[in-house]
Amino acid sequence: MAPAPRPIALLTDFGVTDAYVGVMKGVLLARCPGASLFDLTHGVPAQDVVAGALHLRAAAPYCPPDTVFLAVVDPGVGGTRRPVCLRSGGRLFVGPDNGLLWPAAAALGTPKAFHLDRVDLWLPAPSATFHGRDIFAPVAAALAQGRAPEEAGTPLADPVRLELPSAERTPEGVQGEVLLIDHFGNAVTSLTPADLGFPEPEACRFHAGEHVLRGPATHYGAVALGEPLVLLGSLGYYEVAVNGGSAAERLGLRRGDAVTVLAPDHASYR
Amino acid sequence: MAPAPRPIALLTDFGVTDAYVGVMKGVLLARCPGASLFDLTHGVPAQDVVAGALHLRAAAPYCPPDTVFLAVVDPGVGGTRRPVCLRSGGRLFVGPDNGLLWPAAAALGTPKAFHLDRVDLWLPAPSATFHGRDIFAPVAAALAQGRAPEEAGTPLADPVRLELPSAERTPEGVQGEVLLIDHFGNAVTSLTPADLGFPEPEACRFHAGEHVLRGPATHYGAVALGEPLVLLGSLGYYEVAVNGGSAAERLGLRRGDAVTVLAPDHASYR
Amino acid sequence: MAPAPRPIALLTDFGVTDAYVGVMKGVLLARCPGASLFDLTHGVPAQDVVAGALHLRAAAPYCPPDTVFLAVVDPGVGGTRRPVCLRSGGRLFVGPDNGLLWPAAAALGTPKAFHLDRVDLWLPAPSATFHGRDIFAPVAAALAQGRAPEEAGTPLADPVRLELPSAERTPEGVQGEVLLIDHFGNAVTSLTPADLGFPEPEACRFHAGEHVLRGPATHYGAVALGEPLVLLGSLGYYEVAVNGGSAAERLGLRRGDAVTVLAPDHASYR
Repeated sequence: MAPAPRPIALLTDFGVTDAYVGVMKGVLLARCPGASLFDLTHGVPAQDVVAGALHLRAAAPYCPPDTVFLAVVDPGVGGTRRPVCLRSGGRLFVGPDNGLLWPAAAALGTPKAFHLDRVDLWLPAPSATFHGRDIFAPVAAALAQGRAPEEAGTPLADPVRLELPSAERTPEGVQGEVLLIDHFGNAVTSLTPADLGFPEPEACRFHAGEHVLRGPATHYGAVALGEPLVLLGSLGYYEVAVNGGSAAERLGLRRGDAVTVLAPDHASYR
Repeated sequence: MAPAPRPIALLTDFGVTDAYVGVMKGVLLARCPGASLFDLTHGVPAQDVVAGALHLRAAAPYCPPDTVFLAVVDPGVGGTRRPVCLRSGGRLFVGPDNGLLWPAAAALGTPKAFHLDRVDLWLPAPSATFHGRDIFAPVAAALAQGRAPEEAGTPLADPVRLELPSAERTPEGVQGEVLLIDHFGNAVTSLTPADLGFPEPEACRFHAGEHVLRGPATHYGAVALGEPLVLLGSLGYYEVAVNGGSAAERLGLRRGDAVTVLAPDHASYR
Repeated sequence: MAPAPRPIALLTDFGVTDAYVGVMKGVLLARCPGASLFDLTHGVPAQDVVAGALHLRAAAPYCPPDTVFLAVVDPGVGGTRRPVCLRSGGRLFVGPDNGLLWPAAAALGTPKAFHLDRVDLWLPAPSATFHGRDIFAPVAAALAQGRAPEEAGTPLADPVRLELPSAERTPEGVQGEVLLIDHFGNAVTSLTPADLGFPEPEACRFHAGEHVLRGPATHYGAVALGEPLVLLGSLGYYEVAVNGGSAAERLGLRRGDAVTVLAPDHASYR
């Protein structure tokens, strides 16, 4: 008896209004019957490779250790961008070579990259606009059935290594930005605990737009309903949130806005 | 051979733009390989425990009798709110002890409650902001694999028993409210057939905002295209709808609006 | 041992804010345990049978050859509209007899139609507003378990045969329309390669609103970022798109707008 296929996790910016994701699932199940498919999300903002990379990196460590990740956020589809597979920590990542897969794979180990050039594994006559259906899904199905990346492509020395936006140290403190606004209106910043080297992070002040917020709280209920706060969120970054509400609405925060943390002994605190 | 795992149904207010639901599914499949996961909905309005409870209660009786329901609408995450499991009619409900699970469990039998305090079943070092991933998902996975609630927690005498909004009898008739607006713009009211004790419900008049509608019709086509009507909907309540359109848009109805039914012999009918 | 159940693909206009799709999945898994369920989409615009038929027709050929398609876009639910099953090319299509299923089934072969009148396969006491749950899902579950359409209904000679909007030839060229706007803001037209009988399609001009676009490009990157173009899309039609952006926003296109192609030698080109 053949071993059970690997589970396949999907992440795209295809949204849920069309059948683009559905047709990829059709290809996956046609080529790998019985596969366990699950969605990470299809709500990545259109063509936002950084947001897709953040969600993928945050989710991957929690998934089964043999998961095949099929991720597509691909503004350059049909151009010279290469289809790739990264293998890292037992997991496989299939998608465009534009950096989307890199942070997730690099967080799990030292990725080994493959250029997916075995066209006999693709659908016949692949289109130039839908590699998710025509290239990535059939290759992911083959990998889920036990095929090795070595059989699906050739080793690649120079995959695109995406650097996620990181915080910048300044004499006064640390400067970051809003990376994304989530479903609840939380503003996920690029600031991590490692960025705050201060001995008492609770004594810091976060400056977001015209608002000044206390250092990180442990849960939403630490402030009154409707009040803003800073929390360490599940993506691994500090988030600006509002207890029982939306920080994006309440504080007018948007992607790209600066969020600055001043050290506890900075003049503006006195 | 181990028996097949129980199916797991998910319901949250996490939306579909982030990977919050996806990472929960990763945990479920990592801990319970081969589980049949299915989504009830992730579109419950943010932090609306009543709306979540309504959807869960309406869906649960149709699901496989051994389903584990993993439901999270949890404004109080990270506070003193307890994680619970309710067992009722063979089904198991896992989530926050804020009433979300109660109406569904109570509709299927007499719920037995457990405080999920067996921390060895949780993910290590659970966060204060994402119990769905760190507590509820791993416990649900253990239950789906056949573990009994008794092994995941201790009996709980006083789970939160949520009372759903109900209709109120007045001398003139029955007073209810709009509980939720659905995807089609139907306004689901808190009025049920049991509330209308009148001998001829068709002879009633429903007052919604400034609109007066005839008693319940049997299907949308009972009125002309674009016309409003009242129907008994699939959540078990009377709904104000528009044939081929949106009642919320056409009649300006919103959650919380009053909907009143006057008895057939009331003066305003003459 | 019973053979594995057929996979079941779902397509509806039910959206993702309520548990309407979820309760259908509950019925499917209750009656066909272990079935492989996958979503094509639930984001068909409310009651838009043509858009649903387009997505279903585009997706079906990529799905496993034994798939049971459960599709519901059903403005006439509860009226005289019949529940049907179409069998074509090994695949089965279950849903309302309003044309939704026809284009997909007809593209795969010569459909054989059945009126689903075996009420013992339905849920008891089916409602007049939710045939997806009460009729289509339990019948689809029976078919997925291996029951033949002949056992679920009686042959039907006159199923509704939906004609999708097609292009019209005029002396100057070809006249089409925008069939739908997709998640990325691409405007999918009713124009296909077969409609353009010109020897050099690249030399054509597409007139969309006040905009004139060159003949079809092969991929988005063929024009500069932010610029509009025409492409052959994955639904099989020409699409008006914008590289890295939304054609609907940038060009103000909406469903139903005319898109005209003038032959290369037409006067307006000189």
